[in-house]
Amino acid sequence: MNQLSWAYLNRVVEGPSRALQQLLAAGRDPAEIARGIRTRATWLGDLTAQTEARHSWDRAEEDLAAAAEVGARLISPDSPEWPRAEFDLAFGFAASGRSDHLRSYQDDAVPPHALWVKGRPLGETVAQSVGVVGTRAASRYGIEATRQIATGLAAHQWTVVSGGALGIDTAAHEATLGAGGLTVVVAACGIDRAYPARNATLLERIAGQGTWVSEYPPGTPPQRHRFLTRNRLVAALTAGTVIVEAAWRSGALNTLSWAEGLGRVTMAVPGPVTGAGSLGCHERIKENRAQLVTGSDDIRALLGAAGALDVAEQYELAFAATPVQALSRNELRVYDAVDPAGTRAEEVAETAGLTLPLTVHLLLDLVRRGLLTREGMIWRRADTL
Amino acid sequence: MNQLSWAYLNRVVEGPSRALQQLLAAGRDPAEIARGIRTRATWLGDLTAQTEARHSWDRAEEDLAAAAEVGARLISPDSPEWPRAEFDLAFGFAASGRSDHLRSYQDDAVPPHALWVKGRPLGETVAQSVGVVGTRAASRYGIEATRQIATGLAAHQWTVVSGGALGIDTAAHEATLGAGGLTVVVAACGIDRAYPARNATLLERIAGQGTWVSEYPPGTPPQRHRFLTRNRLVAALTAGTVIVEAAWRSGALNTLSWAEGLGRVTMAVPGPVTGAGSLGCHERIKENRAQLVTGSDDIRALLGAAGALDVAEQYELAFAATPVQALSRNELRVYDAVDPAGTRAEEVAETAGLTLPLTVHLLLDLVRRGLLTREGMIWRRADTL
Repeated sequence: MNQLSWAYLNRVVEGPSRALQQLLAAGRDPAEIARGIRTRATWLGDLTAQTEARHSWDRAEEDLAAAAEVGARLISPDSPEWPRAEFDLAFGFAASGRSDHLRSYQDDAVPPHALWVKGRPLGETVAQSVGVVGTRAASRYGIEATRQIATGLAAHQWTVVSGGALGIDTAAHEATLGAGGLTVVVAACGIDRAYPARNATLLERIAGQGTWVSEYPPGTPPQRHRFLTRNRLVAALTAGTVIVEAAWRSGALNTLSWAEGLGRVTMAVPGPVTGAGSLGCHERIKENRAQLVTGSDDIRALLGAAGALDVAEQYELAFAATPVQALSRNELRVYDAVDPAGTRAEEVAETAGLTLPLTVHLLLDLVRRGLLTREGMIWRRADTL
Repeated sequence: MNQLSWAYLNRVVEGPSRALQQLLAAGRDPAEIARGIRTRATWLGDLTAQTEARHSWDRAEEDLAAAAEVGARLISPDSPEWPRAEFDLAFGFAASGRSDHLRSYQDDAVPPHALWVKGRPLGETVAQSVGVVGTRAASRYGIEATRQIATGLAAHQWTVVSGGALGIDTAAHEATLGAGGLTVVVAACGIDRAYPARNATLLERIAGQGTWVSEYPPGTPPQRHRFLTRNRLVAALTAGTVIVEAAWRSGALNTLSWAEGLGRVTMAVPGPVTGAGSLGCHERIKENRAQLVTGSDDIRALLGAAGALDVAEQYELAFAATPVQALSRNELRVYDAVDPAGTRAEEVAETAGLTLPLTVHLLLDLVRRGLLTREGMIWRRADTL
């Protein structure tokens, strides 16, 4: 039962764990690693020390039950909804050594081994997404700027990912929900806990309309180091991160640094210079570590029509021999899901693993570009290719 | 009498005139050119057509008298206070073809042939100066940001140059005056006219504490094309220009384009993205045509301690063999004015052609850097060289 193994690993090895990732990458399956930890196997490497205190905690069934009780599930690289493409892109970039910005975080620049999820399938909700984060001590200006941005993103089928904190994060989630858009909250504590308590209702609304996700087993309290590793997930799951209001030492800057270190697009919204509220945003722009954006149009333009690409992908697209080779990842998922004989949008969405609104958005775009045709409810590949 | 010739040329040839600059560059003196225009000489070139309607207007004495009546004087390249270094740097850059931003303005990218001036010597007041411009329809935020910047610049002996318009320009002038600093207004009409009328008192205060300057003969009304050529002077006289609040089609953007085309430092202050007031500022930052600055510290850092240098000068400084060779233009003016046997600051200022506060500022800096010593009121060159 891999599910029980993942639950065990999630409990005894707090993510992120480079040692565990190395064992998985070496081809050991989760059940084998779980057994190895329980029996203190010689091949555990750094995982021996990391699991010294916890290896006998066998609470997998209890954890899965506690999650089920609040309507949450455990997902792992085995799950269809695992955001594999996003993690591969982000942590592959970090592993490539192309990043100068991960020095002190290098050990944490690995994907989670399992995630607790509540709401819509995570892979679908983050397929076209952007991180929107900022200070807890938000000004009226910051709240308003965040609302405008989140509303504009939602209107174009972009999912807004944030950390569920008070202030800017809350404004981003709420505005997206209000606009009928998708939003994802990455929590820094167990998925059975509402933190901050004031946002208990908001978190449930997000789970109802989007996705609530946590790297930590049920019952885990929020602690400082977990906010930092949580920030890495906001950056890794999204095509880019935008900071809306961030003062000198705002945690939002940490999320932006993660986006930078993971090769994602980094953006900052400017604000009044007569206060210190946007000082962190201005600093990052001055240092050429973030691009100035004034609204959702700028953000969408920087991220591309359907998800950011890494440098190699951009290169491939620029020299694509056929229009199909020039498609972005999400466009290709939709195109491949269209049967030459004709398919309904709902089936395309299911096959592509994307939400229906995003699927329709991309289908229409492919029609405009002459790659598909539409007849009533049926979408077909164009003959011209 | 060159003064009469310059006054005649200023009246019959509206600046900027590339044709007139070419004749001056070819070595013809102003009296000779004036005679040539009056007699319709064959060597006038483009100046023949340019002076067709006006060549018989011989109002030099009247213009000088009208200026004298309001306390103004005419200055020309012959005058000690002519800002030669500034003009050489700016229009030399434009002439070098290194600028992509002068297309439609190329013909206007020449220095004025004469200027009407009221107040302190122009060369002194602009020796360490920055242009601060913005919208007439300034918001409370724009006014406050401008005040903070102008006050900070004044505190460090930077002269604030602006256009005397309502809104941001007015705030820049007023805050500088309030801080006891130097400010220069470049008018788009004759120096005997107060435009806008509401700023009549402000213009007189500027002339009393700083310098009021115009390229146009007495009586000239402000017209659209004169605002554009006036903007070029704000850019040419200063080490850099900062726009504080500029919407989509603000005239301040024209000044910034001039600064760009003349090789000066271009800067923009961000503002709220929830309104359109700073839209022009944000656009220029996004296009990498202006650097984001949040206050006077940023501006001073970008412009260097004592005036911007062009690329060649920066190169020379980077490879300077001795500390003296590493001095900037204004620092060298001060250093050279210090007699090895000892000189008082007032004499240094007079010899260097700089204001006393700026001179003392630079003297202290040279002491800190070990190039000068100070004993009571006397400054001396250090022995160590």
